[in-house]
Amino acid sequence: MNTFNSPLDALWAPESVAIVGASADPKKTGGRPVAYLLKHGFEGNIWPINPRADEIAGLPCFASVADLPGAPDVAIVLLGVDRAEAAVRDLAAKGCKLAIVLASGYSEAGEEGRNRQQALRAAAGDMRLLGPNTIGAMDLSRGIVLSASGALEGDDIHKGGISVASQSGGILGALLSRGAARGIGFCKLASTGNEADLDISDLIEAYAHDNATTVIAAYIEGIRSVEKFRRAAIAARAAGKPLVVYKVGRSESGARAAVSHTGAMAGEDRTYDALFHQVGAIRAETFSDLLDLPAMLASGRKMAGERVAILTSTGGAGSLVADNCGLLGLDVPEIDAATGKTLADLLGKDAPMTSNPVDLTLAGVEPAIMTAATQALLASDGIDGVVVVVGSSALARPDVAVGAIRAGARASDKPLIAYVSPHAPHIVDLLNREGVPAFAAPETCATVLKAALPQPEAGAPLKAKPATALPEALPGGALNEAEARDLFDAFGLTGAKSFVVQTAEEALKAATELGGPVVLKVLSREIAHKSDVGGVRVGLAPEAVGPALTEMAGTLAKQGLPEPEGYLVQDMVRGGLEMILGLRRDPQLGPLILLGAGGVQAELSGDSTLRLLPLREGDARGMIEDLKVKRLLDGYRGAPAYDTDALIAAIEALARMGDALGERLEEAEINPLFVLQNGQGVAAADGLVVLKD
Amino acid sequence: MNTFNSPLDALWAPESVAIVGASADPKKTGGRPVAYLLKHGFEGNIWPINPRADEIAGLPCFASVADLPGAPDVAIVLLGVDRAEAAVRDLAAKGCKLAIVLASGYSEAGEEGRNRQQALRAAAGDMRLLGPNTIGAMDLSRGIVLSASGALEGDDIHKGGISVASQSGGILGALLSRGAARGIGFCKLASTGNEADLDISDLIEAYAHDNATTVIAAYIEGIRSVEKFRRAAIAARAAGKPLVVYKVGRSESGARAAVSHTGAMAGEDRTYDALFHQVGAIRAETFSDLLDLPAMLASGRKMAGERVAILTSTGGAGSLVADNCGLLGLDVPEIDAATGKTLADLLGKDAPMTSNPVDLTLAGVEPAIMTAATQALLASDGIDGVVVVVGSSALARPDVAVGAIRAGARASDKPLIAYVSPHAPHIVDLLNREGVPAFAAPETCATVLKAALPQPEAGAPLKAKPATALPEALPGGALNEAEARDLFDAFGLTGAKSFVVQTAEEALKAATELGGPVVLKVLSREIAHKSDVGGVRVGLAPEAVGPALTEMAGTLAKQGLPEPEGYLVQDMVRGGLEMILGLRRDPQLGPLILLGAGGVQAELSGDSTLRLLPLREGDARGMIEDLKVKRLLDGYRGAPAYDTDALIAAIEALARMGDALGERLEEAEINPLFVLQNGQGVAAADGLVVLKD
Repeated sequence: MNTFNSPLDALWAPESVAIVGASADPKKTGGRPVAYLLKHGFEGNIWPINPRADEIAGLPCFASVADLPGAPDVAIVLLGVDRAEAAVRDLAAKGCKLAIVLASGYSEAGEEGRNRQQALRAAAGDMRLLGPNTIGAMDLSRGIVLSASGALEGDDIHKGGISVASQSGGILGALLSRGAARGIGFCKLASTGNEADLDISDLIEAYAHDNATTVIAAYIEGIRSVEKFRRAAIAARAAGKPLVVYKVGRSESGARAAVSHTGAMAGEDRTYDALFHQVGAIRAETFSDLLDLPAMLASGRKMAGERVAILTSTGGAGSLVADNCGLLGLDVPEIDAATGKTLADLLGKDAPMTSNPVDLTLAGVEPAIMTAATQALLASDGIDGVVVVVGSSALARPDVAVGAIRAGARASDKPLIAYVSPHAPHIVDLLNREGVPAFAAPETCATVLKAALPQPEAGAPLKAKPATALPEALPGGALNEAEARDLFDAFGLTGAKSFVVQTAEEALKAATELGGPVVLKVLSREIAHKSDVGGVRVGLAPEAVGPALTEMAGTLAKQGLPEPEGYLVQDMVRGGLEMILGLRRDPQLGPLILLGAGGVQAELSGDSTLRLLPLREGDARGMIEDLKVKRLLDGYRGAPAYDTDALIAAIEALARMGDALGERLEEAEINPLFVLQNGQGVAAADGLVVLKD
Repeated sequence: MNTFNSPLDALWAPESVAIVGASADPKKTGGRPVAYLLKHGFEGNIWPINPRADEIAGLPCFASVADLPGAPDVAIVLLGVDRAEAAVRDLAAKGCKLAIVLASGYSEAGEEGRNRQQALRAAAGDMRLLGPNTIGAMDLSRGIVLSASGALEGDDIHKGGISVASQSGGILGALLSRGAARGIGFCKLASTGNEADLDISDLIEAYAHDNATTVIAAYIEGIRSVEKFRRAAIAARAAGKPLVVYKVGRSESGARAAVSHTGAMAGEDRTYDALFHQVGAIRAETFSDLLDLPAMLASGRKMAGERVAILTSTGGAGSLVADNCGLLGLDVPEIDAATGKTLADLLGKDAPMTSNPVDLTLAGVEPAIMTAATQALLASDGIDGVVVVVGSSALARPDVAVGAIRAGARASDKPLIAYVSPHAPHIVDLLNREGVPAFAAPETCATVLKAALPQPEAGAPLKAKPATALPEALPGGALNEAEARDLFDAFGLTGAKSFVVQTAEEALKAATELGGPVVLKVLSREIAHKSDVGGVRVGLAPEAVGPALTEMAGTLAKQGLPEPEGYLVQDMVRGGLEMILGLRRDPQLGPLILLGAGGVQAELSGDSTLRLLPLREGDARGMIEDLKVKRLLDGYRGAPAYDTDALIAAIEALARMGDALGERLEEAEINPLFVLQNGQGVAAADGLVVLKD
């Protein structure tokens, strides 16, 4: 029996595997695990358990868990939902390290199912669980297959550096069979199913620390613990292993009710986008990308810049690839003169061939020319990566065509990929197995090259700055605007100049001191929408503010509204750029900061972005760069620029406020936040804070 | 010899085919056409021409065109660029109807090539040309193959209703080989290459009138004649044949310099988008869609509404399809109770199965259950189309699984498609051949179902309204604002109230009559940007307008600007929604109308849309519906609505002005156009018109 550092090590290096409910028929699901273990050459002990069989596939069969000759490192429980719990209890008692439970009928099956899952978890005690409702796990690099997945029937599964973590067993099988057919090599694969214990983040973290894994692909339906996921993703990044995620559930984003304005702009799926972005994970936009991106990244080749050369013997397909590269912002530049001369010499032409795509015409079918042209392009200082188009002429001699491309790749470590234009799965398979990522969709060629660009480094954690003097004894619920203003102010988020007043006389005095047109607002924790009840007046001359206060008090009283806590006389901010800055909570992923352009038009165009807390250095600037309104901030068409540094400071101040108040802070919003001209800072013209009781 | 109604008829029904430059080696490009004609069972005369051979593939070979026993209906010219022109001349002299020229080295090869192409065209005289630089044409429905495409080597090409028009021969071959591998059936295919004579529109129009064609797929690099394309596309629509187009060149849209503001917002590719939209063509967004959409539409089944049911035995894949349906705006609703009961009965369950996706679990592998469940969903009044997920369990018995799905489809004419989750090309092939469109990408399932929704009917042509009194003798170049205003006015596009004045006294009188704050603007054909030179003053009280005019005159004079034609005193429009309405010319596709939201933020968000002239009924409303700002026009968040009817009238007025002035009108722009509140119309606050000399 092994001792393991991590619970998942048992999955990848068991010395003994018990199969509870093994069947002697290898065509049945219950018969597959023993058959697959043998087929893939597992060298440890295989212990089938079935009270109605003496032997299975030549191995002695045990009547019960208790009869096993020792504690298995791993057990695969093939029993149905009715009998799985007892088996898990027996395995735990026997000292098994980890049980894989395939049965469904747990938390995915309503209240009753959730109770069954809790009982299953309890029955496991200290023993770790994979599942229930999982298809199991496999380490192809060492031939350890703990699964009943039919995708393992094939004989064409290749070993490689891609490890897969999936919350769905069916998807795991689909990825495995699709990848196998394309010559894509896998390392470890596991599905976590209902995640009664081990979850997707455990797998990702295990892969991050696994020497045989070079790229991680994850299929995600939902993340149970954002902290665990973040830790796992950061471990993968630290280990230099790209993490590619496909997250299903993008179109349910509108389903959640959103109470505040900020909430309405931040859909759930966008929050996942922010999370993936912040931890440096690459989001697969299509299901196919979940295989294609890892296939590219497993080559280990990186684009130093955005310049792509396309080498083709068939014009149309070259245009397809070039067009899609351009759509994703990659550059398809002219070939430099020296390289163009080399290419022309190859074809016996006089004029340098500087057009890109480089059309070799039918001469390019000649292997020596294809190889030399590929090498010449890869050697060019003006090119960061090459796409070779495989046309129908390659169909006649696939091995020659593939060999020529492979030979061209050897002299360089820049990315070289192939676009296979006709239907030619055998060429795709051959190229991938030879280490040349090959794709049948022109869109994919552009997507994978873009993903091979250098990923931005993670910033350092944001330094905490102590709040100057945190207001004491804040009440629960919505604060009034003056309280909110003071709280923001304590974290360095300055509002427009203002005074709290109680009477018309005090209002006049305040307005006179402010000196320009002012805004008068009611201060009340009870009134959520001040404007709607006549609690806001703008553009008041100092002498008009007293009468306005008296009138406002009357209007509010007539509506039977509670006595206000006072009134705010505020400097009327003008000439700034209107934005929205807020903090809210995603029920699943926790607190996040939202930044958006202000005003109705910006709202219609959805010009907003978000980041989860905690922020890092660079996140605030990145948020600004996400927005279309950035062009206005920078000084659009000769207009003066706005104070971006002050906006960054404001974002970070709100983030620190979120960190400092923690769970206490339900929601905060500054709308509008005026960004003033360069050097003049920002001014919060309204503020909302909701605290937990 | 045949007589043909249309030049292209010779391509599809020749009685005799000459092959100029035929080779006796069927593996060489020159040997393929004879081999393919024989292989596909061509029953007419095949006349190989090669002075160095006596017979080819058992057929007597002729030494020259002159030696042919008659005038061939079609000739395939396999000679290189040096000898093709002479052959074409000989064929024309012999009375050949149509020559297919494969050689390249023409207009794609610079100035010299363009000259060669002109000479080739001249040599053809009245004989029609396909190419040069074409791969030829084929009619699979009748086994007439006039091509050297290597994609014809395969034996698995299926006959069907999809006809393909391509400007690239390589792409044609790729589509044919990819489609063949997936069981997609083709009818006619041709590539037009350099289009010295016959172009892509000729092919589309021929397919529109072809009885054997049910769907048209077109690969387009550029359209030479927008009128021809429009006529062809409208013929296809009239014949009820969906036209699916893939247009390459989307990322070059930013390359063209744009002089006016309107120009900056209208990229070239967007113009193609507008064209396709206006003629009812469906644009394929990915290259794969160019096969997938026709494969769906060839089934002839239409979605009556947006409600999709997903039937699966594997949960993850069902989620993938549902998520993508939702992303494209399709509905995946709860199953109605009666159907849910039927489904539950099938599985022996008590509670109705109303969840969607409908997860049959492994029971769904049973063919009778799969068939019955499919039928039940298709029969539901609450469902407009069904996606069946094929899981890995089908791999063991593909024919049974396919048969079960096929049987389920028979009882209904609603769309039924399959998503094949594992790698299973044989199942995709089988399903497609059985008439069940099958796809390996979940995104595609959503895309094709969406394309099966009813397409909007084409509106009637816009009725012309005579302009009230068209100003005479308009000068060339930019008009001044008063001239532009009068021209717009003649077509019913009313500007803000204004007077043309020459002196400070006249200005005072005009402003007094207008009565509110006014705008004062210089009138000059020479000054393009009035604001930049101090030629615009806004918000003037009537008494201030006289001095302002005097000052403005001085300012302009000091800059050495030419004497203005006068000044405009204009009512200052307020309270309307600011928009931009313009007319410009795409160098390739002709005049177009552009409508956009006004202001900087709208510009940043690219909230604009366009339509090519001529407009039809409904186009103007459709333009408004394209815009995000439509929500403001409709009355956003309780605000009053704006006068959409007046905006529609303004758009149509500008379109009529474009129709009436024709080539004379280079450019027109109203920026801003204020849309006032309901019933109050629109007001043009500035106007630019540029006429050709």
